[in-house]
Amino acid sequence: MSPDARDVLYVVKNISLLIIGHLPDIEFIKMNYKLILRFFGTLLLVETAALLIAALVSLIYKEHDIVYFLISSAISFVVGISCILSGRNAKLQIGKREGSLVVTFTWIVFSLFGLLPYWLSGSIPSFTDAFFETISGFTTTGASILNNIEELSYGMLFWRSLTHWIGGLGIIVLSLALLPVFGMSATQLFAAEAAGPTKDKIHPKINETAKRLFLIYLLLTTAQTVLLRIGGMTWFDALCQSFGTVATGGFSTKQASIAYWDSAYIQYIIIIFMILSGVNFSLYYFGFKNKFSKIKENEELKYYLILLFSATIVIVLSQIDFSSALSFSKVEQAWRDSLFTVSSLMTTTGFGTADYVQWHHFTWIILLIVMITGASAGSTSGAIKMVRIVIVFKYCYYEFKRIIHPNAVLPVRYSGHIVREDVITRVLAFVLLYLITIAFGILVLNISGMGFEESIGGLIACLGGVGPGLGELGPMGNYAAIPDFSKWFLSFIMLVGRLELFTVLLLFTPAFWKK
Amino acid sequence: MSPDARDVLYVVKNISLLIIGHLPDIEFIKMNYKLILRFFGTLLLVETAALLIAALVSLIYKEHDIVYFLISSAISFVVGISCILSGRNAKLQIGKREGSLVVTFTWIVFSLFGLLPYWLSGSIPSFTDAFFETISGFTTTGASILNNIEELSYGMLFWRSLTHWIGGLGIIVLSLALLPVFGMSATQLFAAEAAGPTKDKIHPKINETAKRLFLIYLLLTTAQTVLLRIGGMTWFDALCQSFGTVATGGFSTKQASIAYWDSAYIQYIIIIFMILSGVNFSLYYFGFKNKFSKIKENEELKYYLILLFSATIVIVLSQIDFSSALSFSKVEQAWRDSLFTVSSLMTTTGFGTADYVQWHHFTWIILLIVMITGASAGSTSGAIKMVRIVIVFKYCYYEFKRIIHPNAVLPVRYSGHIVREDVITRVLAFVLLYLITIAFGILVLNISGMGFEESIGGLIACLGGVGPGLGELGPMGNYAAIPDFSKWFLSFIMLVGRLELFTVLLLFTPAFWKK
Repeated sequence: MSPDARDVLYVVKNISLLIIGHLPDIEFIKMNYKLILRFFGTLLLVETAALLIAALVSLIYKEHDIVYFLISSAISFVVGISCILSGRNAKLQIGKREGSLVVTFTWIVFSLFGLLPYWLSGSIPSFTDAFFETISGFTTTGASILNNIEELSYGMLFWRSLTHWIGGLGIIVLSLALLPVFGMSATQLFAAEAAGPTKDKIHPKINETAKRLFLIYLLLTTAQTVLLRIGGMTWFDALCQSFGTVATGGFSTKQASIAYWDSAYIQYIIIIFMILSGVNFSLYYFGFKNKFSKIKENEELKYYLILLFSATIVIVLSQIDFSSALSFSKVEQAWRDSLFTVSSLMTTTGFGTADYVQWHHFTWIILLIVMITGASAGSTSGAIKMVRIVIVFKYCYYEFKRIIHPNAVLPVRYSGHIVREDVITRVLAFVLLYLITIAFGILVLNISGMGFEESIGGLIACLGGVGPGLGELGPMGNYAAIPDFSKWFLSFIMLVGRLELFTVLLLFTPAFWKK
Repeated sequence: MSPDARDVLYVVKNISLLIIGHLPDIEFIKMNYKLILRFFGTLLLVETAALLIAALVSLIYKEHDIVYFLISSAISFVVGISCILSGRNAKLQIGKREGSLVVTFTWIVFSLFGLLPYWLSGSIPSFTDAFFETISGFTTTGASILNNIEELSYGMLFWRSLTHWIGGLGIIVLSLALLPVFGMSATQLFAAEAAGPTKDKIHPKINETAKRLFLIYLLLTTAQTVLLRIGGMTWFDALCQSFGTVATGGFSTKQASIAYWDSAYIQYIIIIFMILSGVNFSLYYFGFKNKFSKIKENEELKYYLILLFSATIVIVLSQIDFSSALSFSKVEQAWRDSLFTVSSLMTTTGFGTADYVQWHHFTWIILLIVMITGASAGSTSGAIKMVRIVIVFKYCYYEFKRIIHPNAVLPVRYSGHIVREDVITRVLAFVLLYLITIAFGILVLNISGMGFEESIGGLIACLGGVGPGLGELGPMGNYAAIPDFSKWFLSFIMLVGRLELFTVLLLFTPAFWKK
């Protein structure tokens, strides 16, 4: 691994730990602006490479859009190299407050350079729209402002899907450090050996872990691409849908999303891979290591699957007309549509095969609930995550037990371990802050001129990184018609949700700016 | 005070403490069924007395309905006396689980006997409707199924308002014991002297405190009645509206609610008394004792008023048309309507002067938010209560500060005191459980056949004890048209909300029924 890449990982790791504030025993030193520049410079080189891959796709399909990819990558490269050169003497020093700024701006900088191909080529003429579409890609949300997706060139479609894949990878690496929130450090999850987090040990550990995660991510993408190709998709479509699935993004290459492929095989493959992408990636690692007991005792996985299938069954029952004769094909269709929709929304992917806006109103509420819970921590999915939901419910139940047995010591257990009281409090605070953000955000959207249903659906969908919402923002609609202000606000909300609230919201507290 | 009344207070106090499970140092002993019978018997004698007062009103107005009040009170008396006689040898023994059952059934028993006048007289022919209307009264909710309120006789109207007043009084007495949830015991609030809660000391303390609260309650009711009479209401209307205000209930004697009295004086008087009824009653006690510093440092009062007036100002601004000339009367009307509506919904009263369903959609969200926050603990208002909201926000902000200063000890302070970590966790859990109940309840209502807006508004309004919701359940509509199942479910929800969730929900946990 190059020294620069190592720096990036080191910085990401430490910044994340800073943001979480969970491991105060690690020494933190003040970051200088040179290092920030060098960091962003390195990131821009990564983006340059990504833009060149999109250019290659345009080359293969002999498209004029190759020009815009080359221009964009040139801009990205020049700015990137300048940043690295201005920061070449930087020492590895990280300040406390800068961490939050850097992580937030990583997504903003990526989006500002990533929108260039859309905007320069005129594929998305409005700057606001281009930014919305790009940050929606990088945050793996999948909310789109495009009225006709198939109008775009292959290069643009590929770039659109690639933003998902890059964003998903970024989150997986970041969540390495975010996992300690739940009282389990990344090292604990990825290696059985107890490791004291000394400064020297972080380097090899995080490199090793990052490599493993990347391999799992790559493996899922490859497997899905091949399986979709077998089902009759072109290689291009297969790869792009896989990018959208594994990153739980939801951008498709077709206007009708997955409904375009009227094949049970293809739809079931995508269902399976959506569900797989909502699982904590560390469980795959345990699987490879034959540690199946670790997978079996993982409560997040258990409740994730229970909620997913329960919600599906309720929705299936609401769609079957029991007064007429039941045929296998009808039941299968209802089952597939329901399972697809629930999997898509709960894993915060956002692909569509059926227009759930047309379903019974009460199914909307079930769908909104799974959009708020999300899938597992340590996956690419967004929203609250099941681990937090499970802890909230366990704690509430513990409160009931405490009323009956006031003197008994009844600790909350998660996956066989006792959850510390301060971790519980923090989880409860996170979930509450998430719900407060929803209420506040709906209010802002509604004031900005969006409808009642659109405000509710749009806010929950963007905060959770889902994509489609309710009303005109449903799976067959898009975000094109909402006011510009709402688009900027929702871009902000996508970032807030993707970075687990505190990272971004911290910048808006007086405490952050006070000495 | 009679020995029976003393028993009732003793039982209420200990049961409440049991439910809260907050003072495990008090000895609890197993309750026998004889005491439960004697307890309910005594309560039924109270209800008999209340029914006789309503009979007196019918007598004054020479109404035929007096017959039904006499029959109802006779039934209540006979059952009550039988219960007391069968339980005459009972010892003062309280079991752990029975407490939750007894408090819950107090409201149910009161409602079952309280519905008799409506049902027997045919004023409300449907049993479901009569139960809904009565429990809505006793829980001080104020949700009505009546399509033409003014059709009712004076006796029935009086009884309807009296159920509010009795329910409000019950909650004030119960909240004596509920206050310790927030880390301050009732004795601490009502007397400066630190008192070790020994078994012997409870009797005089609780009697003393109950007397004081009752006096404040009576004083507020009397003052409002006189002031409304001065404004031109009849004594009858003045008394009934005061019952509805002080109990934060919301039943009016007029179909148009307070809009019937098109008098700024009357409406402002009701606004003032709604706001006063949302204040912790112990603060009035401090006021009488000239301890104004205690009132000044009370953060719940501060944030209650800040939120109330901020919400009002935003709504006023949304109603004024700045493009046309502003007149004083227009602005005053907008101000009065907005302040009335916000005060009415935030204190969970539910009186109406304007149809907010016709206002800008975003004001609905503001109104839903204040319906969820509620007013102060220790008042008759329902919902979450501001003290919990304040603690949630303070804790969230503390989390942000902790990220920046991971090693600093930053305790959450409330009204000058440090809030213990376990109290914070419990408050967070309560608020989350409240929000979970909202989500689950909306789903049930929606499945039962109610519309999207009606489900959201109706659930939040009934859980918080507000009354009017959204859509057809708005201030100019009512609950008559919703399905029977929804009426029973909402009756249950009113009870759950009124008894602060845990009391009622506890009965549905396996832990409650396990040995």
